[in-house]
Amino acid sequence: MAFEKMIKNAFEESENNCRFGDSIEEIREIQDYIRNAERIYVPNKNGIKFEVLNKVLAEYGLPQAEILQVNTNTADTSRIPALSKAYIALDQCECDLVIARGRLGIPGSGSLLVFIDNKGRILTAGMSPSHVIHQKSVEEAVREEAVEALEKIGLEKVI
Amino acid sequence: MAFEKMIKNAFEESENNCRFGDSIEEIREIQDYIRNAERIYVPNKNGIKFEVLNKVLAEYGLPQAEILQVNTNTADTSRIPALSKAYIALDQCECDLVIARGRLGIPGSGSLLVFIDNKGRILTAGMSPSHVIHQKSVEEAVREEAVEALEKIGLEKVI
Repeated sequence: MAFEKMIKNAFEESENNCRFGDSIEEIREIQDYIRNAERIYVPNKNGIKFEVLNKVLAEYGLPQAEILQVNTNTADTSRIPALSKAYIALDQCECDLVIARGRLGIPGSGSLLVFIDNKGRILTAGMSPSHVIHQKSVEEAVREEAVEALEKIGLEKVI
Repeated sequence: MAFEKMIKNAFEESENNCRFGDSIEEIREIQDYIRNAERIYVPNKNGIKFEVLNKVLAEYGLPQAEILQVNTNTADTSRIPALSKAYIALDQCECDLVIARGRLGIPGSGSLLVFIDNKGRILTAGMSPSHVIHQKSVEEAVREEAVEALEKIGLEKVI
């Protein structure tokens, strides 16, 4: 079942007040989409975060991402900077999946790592508090956000 | 410092490549905004989720929320249903803060509990996987999302 059909069905359930949460089939569709992605891009200027992300993808048996060198500074003027970074990448390259990391909301709101598909729809995400709250290294925070995003949709470590 | 000034400063830092994460002052502004909110609304038809949320707010020494009876079914046609629910509430009542819960993205992506201010800006959030993944009760999931959202911005339990 393509996402389009799944989204249509889910809304019909909501309309008829008979939607009782996500189904395992919907979650499996997201898993399959990520597993089968051929062109995954990460908009980033920081090679270290990118390496951490690819390491996590490998641990979960997922295809590797490529780095997209693009200036995403303007994303910080938007309401959800992380998502705006993802859209900047989606609109500037041919891809199946974009994984982007940035601020969740206003300054102070911490970070969001978001996975979007080739139409810009949110598949999953992970979040961290600001560094001044969690005191973790950037690498550790990126790693935990990626693991959260993947485990949230039922993916498991394979190595 | 109002959010407007803080957001302006943060973007100037980004533009000049001298933004190195959120500052403790920015986080304190968010804390103060939530502490001082006089009209907090939660768009919801489910009284149990609302009670759990108010219990958590009380534990963190924060003002109580009121329930806003509003039909948010159409939010499920949007890209971020949880955020759309929050906007529906913001646009239909006089308030300082809206706390809304709904889907993060497409069906299967799990849930998002989001706090927005009186201009619709995201202050903080918490997330859960879908019920079929975490197997927790709705009350437990709402509780954990609210705690995540508050602790992420450095708020602590007072009782």
